[in-house]
Amino acid sequence: MIKINSAEILCVGTELLMGEIVNTNAAYISGRLASMGINQYYQAVVGDNPARLERCITASLERCDLLIMTGGLGPTYDDLTKETAARLMNRRLYLHEPSLERMKIYFSERNVVMSETNIKQAMMPEGAVVFVNNNGTAPGLAVEDDKRGKIIIMLPGPPGEMVPMFRDSVEPYLKSFSSVTLVSRNINITGLGESAVEEILEPVMKAAINPTVAPYCKEGEVRLRVTARAENEDEGLVLCDEMIGRIRQTAVAPYIYGVDTDLPSALIDLLRRKGKKIATAESCTGGLIAETLTSVSGASGVFDGGVVSYANTQKISLLGVKKETLERFGAVSEETAREMAEGARALMDADIAVAVTGIAGPGGGTGEKPVGLVYIAVGTKADTQVRRCMFIGNRGRVRRLAAVTALSMAIAKAKSDF
Amino acid sequence: MIKINSAEILCVGTELLMGEIVNTNAAYISGRLASMGINQYYQAVVGDNPARLERCITASLERCDLLIMTGGLGPTYDDLTKETAARLMNRRLYLHEPSLERMKIYFSERNVVMSETNIKQAMMPEGAVVFVNNNGTAPGLAVEDDKRGKIIIMLPGPPGEMVPMFRDSVEPYLKSFSSVTLVSRNINITGLGESAVEEILEPVMKAAINPTVAPYCKEGEVRLRVTARAENEDEGLVLCDEMIGRIRQTAVAPYIYGVDTDLPSALIDLLRRKGKKIATAESCTGGLIAETLTSVSGASGVFDGGVVSYANTQKISLLGVKKETLERFGAVSEETAREMAEGARALMDADIAVAVTGIAGPGGGTGEKPVGLVYIAVGTKADTQVRRCMFIGNRGRVRRLAAVTALSMAIAKAKSDF
Repeated sequence: MIKINSAEILCVGTELLMGEIVNTNAAYISGRLASMGINQYYQAVVGDNPARLERCITASLERCDLLIMTGGLGPTYDDLTKETAARLMNRRLYLHEPSLERMKIYFSERNVVMSETNIKQAMMPEGAVVFVNNNGTAPGLAVEDDKRGKIIIMLPGPPGEMVPMFRDSVEPYLKSFSSVTLVSRNINITGLGESAVEEILEPVMKAAINPTVAPYCKEGEVRLRVTARAENEDEGLVLCDEMIGRIRQTAVAPYIYGVDTDLPSALIDLLRRKGKKIATAESCTGGLIAETLTSVSGASGVFDGGVVSYANTQKISLLGVKKETLERFGAVSEETAREMAEGARALMDADIAVAVTGIAGPGGGTGEKPVGLVYIAVGTKADTQVRRCMFIGNRGRVRRLAAVTALSMAIAKAKSDF
Repeated sequence: MIKINSAEILCVGTELLMGEIVNTNAAYISGRLASMGINQYYQAVVGDNPARLERCITASLERCDLLIMTGGLGPTYDDLTKETAARLMNRRLYLHEPSLERMKIYFSERNVVMSETNIKQAMMPEGAVVFVNNNGTAPGLAVEDDKRGKIIIMLPGPPGEMVPMFRDSVEPYLKSFSSVTLVSRNINITGLGESAVEEILEPVMKAAINPTVAPYCKEGEVRLRVTARAENEDEGLVLCDEMIGRIRQTAVAPYIYGVDTDLPSALIDLLRRKGKKIATAESCTGGLIAETLTSVSGASGVFDGGVVSYANTQKISLLGVKKETLERFGAVSEETAREMAEGARALMDADIAVAVTGIAGPGGGTGEKPVGLVYIAVGTKADTQVRRCMFIGNRGRVRRLAAVTALSMAIAKAKSDF
């Protein structure tokens, strides 16, 4: 039996090279391969050009045992994936009758006359394993070369056809070759930079062989990916949990807000467990915090609503910010942020409120209050805390960092008693 | 001077091979290269492994003149892009003082102590052109090998850092190598599907050689990219404008909402010219419309504020939706949408208001009111119109399509007299 040590993905399509579509196929297949414990060291994209396609396939098969290709299985003359791969593997093409039958039914069900050119899609290399396409015309296929120990899998390019085919046919096919399972868990950290996390955890990460630990940076947070190789999923989870326990004993522990979650989900979970509700009052983030919270299904259990008080008039009339506060300290000030949070909490009858006011830029900055200056308030009935932040970046980034910081402060508050 | 005949993109990052992130960088850079008339035949992805990275760089430089790499410029020990490329191009690394200075300011502005490991990010290969990073710590760079006629460009991996750097620094740098100028303009269309646009414009598009015309689908809108090759920018702009004039005489004309703009910018421009103000009331979009509007700098001139009325209590107390309306027709209904728009307009003392109520899913759908059902209202003092929409897709897509449709309806309304 062929042993799969490593795989590569080769996506075929000029539209990828033109930047007309984003390569979600590679991400999907990579994720599935990772979860099956199949290593992947290279990925490539090439256009619909037979010479370049041939060069890519040849180079891949020198490096890996399993080459998964997507695209180029269409009915037109420039769809050449199958023909090129068959030639390189010395297989003749023959008409695969069951595929032709399926295609005829597919067209007649749609009251469309099948074009002659579609017959090309039912031609298969000798000895190929054929994967049925329930969402389009081009079947997928696997060609095994037992002598060289190599497999080429070819799948249609449209994600709506490729994804179900991969899930329903390719995964069971691949599992028959494998005995190892990879299990990954992500530790979510906020309030500590990537290099600080790395400095604290360097000894742990360097010593980690199974599971491995790798940090990666998201805007305003850091994730630590813990990945275990095991005989089965349960064993992998145990290995991951041991490592997570070890990391929870280091100096990063206070900054861990969850495992396999994200900021809005973690906050919503926390509030739901405590039976508390949150309200938002946003100036420079303009609705981004509310939008982020409600992007999570089930947010309605802890979030009744929020206000975007972009103008001072709305800060006064909706949130009850005092006119004197605005005149004396300005809209971008600790005092205004505080009154916005208190006002939003009262207005929405919530237990906790976050409020943001700042200068997202590019205009509006002064020497005293530059672009990037943001005040973020988190308040409960007991008290309201305000943090002064200086974010660097363009308008979008200042807004995103302000939103992430607000959520992160709300999590810290919600963790404490209130 | 180095002549750029073709380019390749090499994205570095284990998270890409693990399928944890989608490679939007490759799509973005590909699109920009295409618009600059630079050919691309191969793309690759490789992990943070020096031997494999070296193999990829070497193979690329045998095929192309310009290699653009993203990722692996971070401060940690497994970020090796710069070190590997410098070794292959025989360049020593030196401490680039201006980059170190920028980084020190970056950290001090955040009241964060710079870690020793960050100094690595300021190390540059001798003779490199350094691209400033306004959104993070890692500068980008270009290393030119005049003898071999090759250029390697290295850019940070996070799209929030890479995209502005590419736009502001890399494009002007690359343009200095080219003698032909490509000028592109985008015609923005909403309310008409891609295939309808294509059907109407097929004769125009097929006959177009210079400029070319290509349609691109965005969520809820279509863009037509008009691209001219010319001796200089002015000449290119004239060619583009002639083509835009021709397209404005076809049946797509009523659906064109602007050129080189986007929905929120076009809406804000329109309202500013008319001296009118807009308010928002959002249920299922949860703040997305306000967030989209305020993502445009200068939104404050036409937008005082909005309400996220997620719960019925807030629809009643803040927007004045009648209790009987909610009881009789439900929160997701034409009547509720109408009262939300009217309430928001009054509350914010605005000239026009948009309101959205719907079922974004995945839960909450019924036979009568399925997931994807959204009512969108646009109202002025004179009248309020409500559209019933059925959007297909997951929660995020339903919300985005609802927001885009609301903005598109508001543009149509703002174009008319009110």
